Amino acid sequence: MSYQLWYWPDVPGRGEFIRLALEAAEVEYEDMARERGAEALVEDMASRTGFRPFAPPYLVIDDDLCIGQTAHILAVLADRHDFGAGDLETDLHLIQLQLDISDIVAEVHSVHHPISGNLYYQEQMDAAFEAAHQFRETRIPRFLDHFEAALEHHGGPFVLGDHWTHVDTSLFQVMEGLDYMFPNQMRSLDYPRLELCRQSVLELDSVEAYLASDRRLEFNQDGIFRHYPELDSE
Amino acid sequence: MSYQLWYWPDVPGRGEFIRLALEAAEVEYEDMARERGAEALVEDMASRTGFRPFAPPYLVIDDDLCIGQTAHILAVLADRHDFGAGDLETDLHLIQLQLDISDIVAEVHSVHHPISGNLYYQEQMDAAFEAAHQFRETRIPRFLDHFEAALEHHGGPFVLGDHWTHVDTSLFQVMEGLDYMFPNQMRSLDYPRLELCRQSVLELDSVEAYLASDRRLEFNQDGIFRHYPELDSE
Repeated sequence: MSYQLWYWPDVPGRGEFIRLALEAAEVEYEDMARERGAEALVEDMASRTGFRPFAPPYLVIDDDLCIGQTAHILAVLADRHDFGAGDLETDLHLIQLQLDISDIVAEVHSVHHPISGNLYYQEQMDAAFEAAHQFRETRIPRFLDHFEAALEHHGGPFVLGDHWTHVDTSLFQVMEGLDYMFPNQMRSLDYPRLELCRQSVLELDSVEAYLASDRRLEFNQDGIFRHYPELDSE
Repeated sequence: MSYQLWYWPDVPGRGEFIRLALEAAEVEYEDMARERGAEALVEDMASRTGFRPFAPPYLVIDDDLCIGQTAHILAVLADRHDFGAGDLETDLHLIQLQLDISDIVAEVHSVHHPISGNLYYQEQMDAAFEAAHQFRETRIPRFLDHFEAALEHHGGPFVLGDHWTHVDTSLFQVMEGLDYMFPNQMRSLDYPRLELCRQSVLELDSVEAYLASDRRLEFNQDGIFRHYPELDSE
């Protein structure tokens, strides 16, 4: 089987959630737009017919099946490569958690682009300042409380206990992203189970090798998680 | 088998996407908070442990399995009641489309609450005015072009051709909601395949009976789709 991942080449963004799971599971994939550039992605998107993905990331399986939506791609991959639960009910709960992660990721982007993704940050800074305040004070705790509680269910370090799943690699990326975006605010919070989960993902040999490679993209100011000091707490 | 749907009792919101599919398929369910009130929903939410839903709607199956996230609930129900495709690859594409629908629904809410769901609309009207302009001009066409193209794939009237799926009942609700929220803007647009799909869902006997019943909630100013004339085009 072959996997071709299509995502914008210069930002970790939503594509990174797919990459992390594939890398953790040591599944081979081609990272198409990183090899060929953003224009190739735009061309590939435009050439697709039928039930097309709405936006990157999307994954092409065996040159045939094209799947969009981050959480959905992860659910499909987890099923094929055994980094889900392996029983239906628990897998449904993992997918639910992955969709909750998609929701916080969308909200993170709306913090610096509250009015529209079509405008520059500099055109919506006043709204972003207020959005960031609300996000830091109410949404970060609400989401992280939720994920902390999920990690408690099986005692950790991962959501299902001893073996990692797609939810754990995604929680790792959320925590890394929030630390990059809101270093002051995150320093004031205490989520021991999320920290243990993050650390345990980091210590997977495959993840350690990936993070040390040039395949891993650093967070930057064009991505979803951005560090604007004025949006962090003091 | 039994289904208990939990969602806020006074708004159609995301719960209506679940209701419509259940009603179209003539599957029995209890609409818990409409029978018992919003306080019962808050209490039920608080009493749940383990992998809890992040927010309503959620569905309890056989008093046992509790599933959150609208698109996810619909995927589970489609599998159990044959209102999906029945083959894996097409079902994956339907779920992908349903997740695209979740995305436009989230963006619709952000139009009138661009800065935060914690603030009143009246506290963020300037940002909402600009967000609505951007949403009308760029996001509505981008999403509706996408759904129109999906409907073309099998020739209509439904996404898979002759039989309805959970994607069609959701597209019906999206079109109804956009018409309620942006009557002027929507009158200026032409999406014949979406109109045919909407009309075809409307003409399902089960849907017709449901819409005429008091189980159907009208759109209103507390929901996701809201009609603020200043957010519509002139």
